[in-house]
Amino acid sequence: MIEAALRSGRAHRECVFEVFGRRLPGDRRYGVLAGTGRVLEAIGRFRFGAAELDWLSQQRVVDDATLAFLADYRFTGSIEGYREGELYFPGSPLMTVRGSFAEAVVLETVILSILNADSAVATAAARMVSAADCRSIAEMGSRRTGEASAVSSARAAYIAGFSATSNLEAGRRWGIPTMGTAAHAFTLLHDSEEEAFRAQVDSLGPGTTLLVDTYDVRRGVETAVRVAGPELGAVRLDSGDLPTLVREVRAQLDELGATQTRITVTNDLDEHSIAALRGAPVDSFGVGTAVVTGAGAPAAGFVYKLVARREQGSSGDWTPVAKASSGKVGRGGTKRGARLIGADGIARAEHVIIDDDHDGMPEAGFTGIEPRALTVPLMIDGEPDPAALGAAGVRAAREHRASAIAELPPEAFRLGRGEPVLPTVYR
Amino acid sequence: MIEAALRSGRAHRECVFEVFGRRLPGDRRYGVLAGTGRVLEAIGRFRFGAAELDWLSQQRVVDDATLAFLADYRFTGSIEGYREGELYFPGSPLMTVRGSFAEAVVLETVILSILNADSAVATAAARMVSAADCRSIAEMGSRRTGEASAVSSARAAYIAGFSATSNLEAGRRWGIPTMGTAAHAFTLLHDSEEEAFRAQVDSLGPGTTLLVDTYDVRRGVETAVRVAGPELGAVRLDSGDLPTLVREVRAQLDELGATQTRITVTNDLDEHSIAALRGAPVDSFGVGTAVVTGAGAPAAGFVYKLVARREQGSSGDWTPVAKASSGKVGRGGTKRGARLIGADGIARAEHVIIDDDHDGMPEAGFTGIEPRALTVPLMIDGEPDPAALGAAGVRAAREHRASAIAELPPEAFRLGRGEPVLPTVYR
Repeated sequence: MIEAALRSGRAHRECVFEVFGRRLPGDRRYGVLAGTGRVLEAIGRFRFGAAELDWLSQQRVVDDATLAFLADYRFTGSIEGYREGELYFPGSPLMTVRGSFAEAVVLETVILSILNADSAVATAAARMVSAADCRSIAEMGSRRTGEASAVSSARAAYIAGFSATSNLEAGRRWGIPTMGTAAHAFTLLHDSEEEAFRAQVDSLGPGTTLLVDTYDVRRGVETAVRVAGPELGAVRLDSGDLPTLVREVRAQLDELGATQTRITVTNDLDEHSIAALRGAPVDSFGVGTAVVTGAGAPAAGFVYKLVARREQGSSGDWTPVAKASSGKVGRGGTKRGARLIGADGIARAEHVIIDDDHDGMPEAGFTGIEPRALTVPLMIDGEPDPAALGAAGVRAAREHRASAIAELPPEAFRLGRGEPVLPTVYR
Repeated sequence: MIEAALRSGRAHRECVFEVFGRRLPGDRRYGVLAGTGRVLEAIGRFRFGAAELDWLSQQRVVDDATLAFLADYRFTGSIEGYREGELYFPGSPLMTVRGSFAEAVVLETVILSILNADSAVATAAARMVSAADCRSIAEMGSRRTGEASAVSSARAAYIAGFSATSNLEAGRRWGIPTMGTAAHAFTLLHDSEEEAFRAQVDSLGPGTTLLVDTYDVRRGVETAVRVAGPELGAVRLDSGDLPTLVREVRAQLDELGATQTRITVTNDLDEHSIAALRGAPVDSFGVGTAVVTGAGAPAAGFVYKLVARREQGSSGDWTPVAKASSGKVGRGGTKRGARLIGADGIARAEHVIIDDDHDGMPEAGFTGIEPRALTVPLMIDGEPDPAALGAAGVRAAREHRASAIAELPPEAFRLGRGEPVLPTVYR
């Protein structure tokens, strides 16, 4: 596309691209945007090095003019959009990228890869957090997604309200609290369960979490309390019929005097099995596969569409553009979002305001119910908002998600499939 | 686990870990193993650098003895397992890792991350390849999975029989054939569809593929043939009711004399929509979301379990070990796989041979039907099999997959949910 546009003289035409989703993944009630900070960082690093240019040249993928363009590539445009951690609905204008066609179109894959993957995880994770009903929930799914996605999934789950991750690299890179567990392999390494528990308590103290279901849970709990004493931090259960088993283990721990010992459960949990443990004496959850794979919706389904182009002649007018044939019809024009919040603090609607003035920000202009502006500057002339980056950006996104969730009506937290909890209104 | 095992004196106990899946993802008939070459490369690079060690130390994640172990870490053990591209069934011993507990347990996450993600993609992709019925099929899903998984998904899909990818980095890194398409944005950038088509044909020649569904398909096809002539390479359709639309477009192309112009379709295709186009005049398919997300099963569900440990005393005996409590009961002991092939060349069963001699390779010892040995050496004393690495490894895996698929009975290619097409027999 860039090669052909360079030849046709359209490559440097000013353009506006928009990221949005046509529907919510998995017929859910709301989505959680994640990945924005990673996108801004990735755009800053987006360069074509000698190895890439040599390969493109050797393979004749593009011509020399395009190679020269790529060799000098650096995004100098501007981006506005929803804050990371913001909630979204069908049609929400999540990211608006302004730049020349060539400099903006080349970012499509990296922007969508990050936002689709991270938002799928965050959207699934937020449902698990509400199902967990204020009990802590740790992300432990690194082994069930690609080795780089493992790190970014831990980040997305934390933004969505998870309390910790077992992925140490996510801790190092993003400042996310980390935790660890012992696997069955640790118990099986030793000549007996007692030897394994003793090794763990000797090393990590009685406040550690002992995995008690390698052989027989009842004997495992008894051995755990005998070895660690009633100060034992927690026991972990990773198999069996959890609602029943958890009650039995709680009763046994209490009988043994380990009344402060917590129970943590794992075992292919998802939002539904977590909700089914609502009445059970579980203190914390560890979730793996379901959270890192988006619990049935592993990609958020966002697209990156050209919505406006500027005349190259003297007029400089903007033309809204959109695909017009059957299916997947788009809405042209630059947009911004506003969430209408009632006097009770509860959101009523998602407004998407289509603007004719593509250079500036459209004005909301509401009366009555208070609009909360959702579109903020993220990158100006190639310079990202520093507050959106790194560990500070992750913390800000997590806090913003919490405040945005607090605006949702109670129906938002129903786990069944259904309609978005807020209607999208185009203005 | 390593810290506690270093203190208990068990960290250097010789161990055997095994990678296997308890069931096939999505109730499919067979699985396709992918990621083996990437695992071997990742293990070769698996080191703890100064940045990681400093963080682990500052955060007091582990003690000084463990930090020293990690600083010197280099895997020196051995691995055997199924070739990349091999098919698998429940219980197939896909990878057997031999080493000290500490050096083998630390690899769990990286091994499982890669194999679970890549095999999920390959297993889904193989079904699409058979549904495409010898027509070519390109992987175009980079934007619907994490930015690093995008590259490895292209690799896994190619091993499973896809013909090309739109991911240029996969071409550069793994030698996979690449292709590109023009997006609707390219058409919308220009003042008219005709201007866009002319720009593309000027740059890429009439053999290019023109996207004809931005405005009106019938007019788009007419314009495409007018601009490129009857030598037009292909038209792409990305929306609409494809089985009907494809027939109409074929008839229109033939009327216009463009009888050699091919039709390529995209639009959220999966194995079922590809199969539904079996009778339609489609020449090639482009698949995005479904293939990179494993078409409903984004993680293969493999686990990494300790199956044997060696006595540290003078006897040096091996003890098979496995989790024994309710649910997820394992089978201890080192294993190897063999596929029983009938005189007609068709596979009959997957044999998993459990061996008592954990140092060597168990012998199959079959009579009658010919067994094909599935377990081969992959890494010896930390040195990987060079034939399994890089672009050559990818080519070998793709060829091996083709020969292994040719052994399957026809029921293997039914798309509905069902039982594995071969029974797993433990010996």
